[in-house]
Amino acid sequence: MDIPYKIYLNEDEMPRAWYNLRADMKNKPAPLLNPATHEPMTASELAPVFCEELIAQELDNDTAYFPIPDEVFNFYKMYRPSPLVRAYCLEKELGTPAKIYYKFEGNNTSGSHKLNSAIAQAYYAKKQGLKGVTTETGAGQWGTALSMACAYLGLDCRVYMVKVSYEQKPFRREVMRTYGATVTPSPSMSTEIGKKILSEHPGTTGSLGCAISEAVEAATTTEGYRYVLGSVLNQVLLHQSIIGLETEAALKKYGIKPDIIIGCAGGGSNLGGLIAPFMRDKIKGVADYRIIAVEPASCPSFTRGVYAYDFCDTGKVCPLAKMYTLGSGFIPAPNHAGGLRYHGMSSTLSQLYDDGLMEAISVPQTEVFKAAERFARVEGILPAPESSHAIKAAIDEAEKCRETGEEKTIVFGLTGTGYFDMVAYEKFHDGKMDDYIPTDEDLAVGLSQLPKI
Amino acid sequence: MDIPYKIYLNEDEMPRAWYNLRADMKNKPAPLLNPATHEPMTASELAPVFCEELIAQELDNDTAYFPIPDEVFNFYKMYRPSPLVRAYCLEKELGTPAKIYYKFEGNNTSGSHKLNSAIAQAYYAKKQGLKGVTTETGAGQWGTALSMACAYLGLDCRVYMVKVSYEQKPFRREVMRTYGATVTPSPSMSTEIGKKILSEHPGTTGSLGCAISEAVEAATTTEGYRYVLGSVLNQVLLHQSIIGLETEAALKKYGIKPDIIIGCAGGGSNLGGLIAPFMRDKIKGVADYRIIAVEPASCPSFTRGVYAYDFCDTGKVCPLAKMYTLGSGFIPAPNHAGGLRYHGMSSTLSQLYDDGLMEAISVPQTEVFKAAERFARVEGILPAPESSHAIKAAIDEAEKCRETGEEKTIVFGLTGTGYFDMVAYEKFHDGKMDDYIPTDEDLAVGLSQLPKI
Repeated sequence: MDIPYKIYLNEDEMPRAWYNLRADMKNKPAPLLNPATHEPMTASELAPVFCEELIAQELDNDTAYFPIPDEVFNFYKMYRPSPLVRAYCLEKELGTPAKIYYKFEGNNTSGSHKLNSAIAQAYYAKKQGLKGVTTETGAGQWGTALSMACAYLGLDCRVYMVKVSYEQKPFRREVMRTYGATVTPSPSMSTEIGKKILSEHPGTTGSLGCAISEAVEAATTTEGYRYVLGSVLNQVLLHQSIIGLETEAALKKYGIKPDIIIGCAGGGSNLGGLIAPFMRDKIKGVADYRIIAVEPASCPSFTRGVYAYDFCDTGKVCPLAKMYTLGSGFIPAPNHAGGLRYHGMSSTLSQLYDDGLMEAISVPQTEVFKAAERFARVEGILPAPESSHAIKAAIDEAEKCRETGEEKTIVFGLTGTGYFDMVAYEKFHDGKMDDYIPTDEDLAVGLSQLPKI
Repeated sequence: MDIPYKIYLNEDEMPRAWYNLRADMKNKPAPLLNPATHEPMTASELAPVFCEELIAQELDNDTAYFPIPDEVFNFYKMYRPSPLVRAYCLEKELGTPAKIYYKFEGNNTSGSHKLNSAIAQAYYAKKQGLKGVTTETGAGQWGTALSMACAYLGLDCRVYMVKVSYEQKPFRREVMRTYGATVTPSPSMSTEIGKKILSEHPGTTGSLGCAISEAVEAATTTEGYRYVLGSVLNQVLLHQSIIGLETEAALKKYGIKPDIIIGCAGGGSNLGGLIAPFMRDKIKGVADYRIIAVEPASCPSFTRGVYAYDFCDTGKVCPLAKMYTLGSGFIPAPNHAGGLRYHGMSSTLSQLYDDGLMEAISVPQTEVFKAAERFARVEGILPAPESSHAIKAAIDEAEKCRETGEEKTIVFGLTGTGYFDMVAYEKFHDGKMDDYIPTDEDLAVGLSQLPKI
């Protein structure tokens, strides 16, 4: 059977339920802990911050499938199924016998996979009768996705955007405004924590940790609001399983069996979603795959971090999570893959990695952009810097196949487009991109500040 | 039969030939004239500027179908077929009994339909053994598309970008550089005409007319290069017929019969492509449709221009074309739909309009952005300002149906995305957008300068 350039499922072939990988994990991810008592967080303790049904999803390690609500499914139909693309042109360019596929999540206005969870979270907030949600955004993909979802459902959306991004990425900000969101540069005078930070550090350009703190405060102090988050959490990986389930269905439609599955890893939302059904089969022993997480060398939580309980945010207001971490005090070097600059990693993926069920590698920035440009010129799509980490690893694996003559099938996640990242591409073209890699001494600073559990 | 949100053709249902509407037109479009002799341009006169096979396509009013070369078809498969989307959410938002469909051409890195002709023109240049091509770009969509096509084929690409855009749209420039194009701000010191303009007007920020002149000079004075163009020409409409042919096939697949077909109109490339097969049936009397061209009120060539021979460029170096025109000396007011700011209109569409086979309306800018934002919030896609002219007209027609209760089927062309147009959206959000409409006295200036044929 000839394999088309793009495999699209029909609407009636789209998955109707999300898959919860935790239900099939032998070693469950460690629970979130209350930072004061070090006891597992309960649903009622989480209720002031998160929506009820999302808390239930967060804490559920047993239910394998959660039906996708009709309203969410209808929204999915506006931009899903996303194509599974056969990279014929990249294969030709590389002269490799490997067969390369990528699941492309960039064909929606948020430009990434983030929309898959944004609509789900906004839906449950609406169902609970809330007026609106708050969140933080750094590079802006998550904020854009949430704005789109809220506009669709008629929910208010308040985004705290790291001030330096707010000023340097005005276009992202305008996209969010187009969808009716209120975008506030963080730190701001609209919250107590914002005022405190501004009085202590006048002129600060903000940080993700600070923006999280402001968004959480705004949610908990405003009647009818809750806080939502775009990565790291179990619930997000659950919603993102749509990526893996569609990929699995598309591969099965043409009888394709992958050997290697590759995804970029920041907080883990895309990787966790992509690998979910494949990891299930691997755990059950019905199939075997190499599963590779790719992270930036500047922020190597899997490859150079430790597996320990840590704060999820630099403000230390959130519950503690057990994860591969560089320490919440670790400040990653400036890197253009903003979506991968997180000190920790999803608890679920951390447990799987600790169990030896997946591999991890780190790659330097300039190599990533070289791969991105090479990919763009033959496959047409201009990839996001985050996604390009997976491209780099896929190209490396395909080139190994060229050496060995093996016809391996490689599947990778292309999470998004780079249209709002052209400053990064410009630096790359002008030879002004740096490849800072933290020294062991740099890492020791963050790791020395881990909480003692 | 339930109609899905997105109708995708399978690869084997994709059109294998472009359709040349001129073959079925009773009144053929008037020929290009030599500006010196006022005689029809011959193939040999055009050969120093254009590629041979493209000249043949340009001059052919008889051949109805041109097979799409395999290499072009393979490239099409990377981003086509484009979806025909049922705008269920927009229909619900409007409370209309009308059924609304849009053909979405924005799901590729150029962000628009321009890629359809770029790959065809680059292919014929490569086939002729040329080293490269030159072109001009204003807003940057065409330059991006041509860069992508040339990168794929290994052809050199030299883009003259209007200096003001080069400076104000650095991201567009970087996308082109990512695809390996040389981007030169125009006017430049690299051509004689550029030097002349710079000496006469030091500090000028350039114009499309000047960039065209530089690109043509560069092509005709460099061994192994030709000039290519993204709109207006017959050959471009031929390649863009893929839009209409796919739309026709997708509608037939579900037994849908349109009543109204709407497209935005600048030089005519998108509109001419979208309507091609429908206009064929209308000419042959086997179907009837209302076909509506939508242009900006600031540059109303159909609605307030005259049908006459005119220069295609402000530099008056190109052949004369008979078209609806505001005069090559007409300077459109600053308008954020850069792709629609052309003083003239495709000769083919001009003849059809003159024959009463299509309608035209003009719409003011702020109304267009209101429609764009309303569309984005319910349909998810952030539209380009150009495309939003068609959205505005489609919404108006659907609202008429709400009043009359008629269940009309409306199809419009959504030519591209607005990711690189956020400055325009920002002005709209901040209430700083103007709606300048030329007075009759303004128009008289351009119309007084028409050549006397």
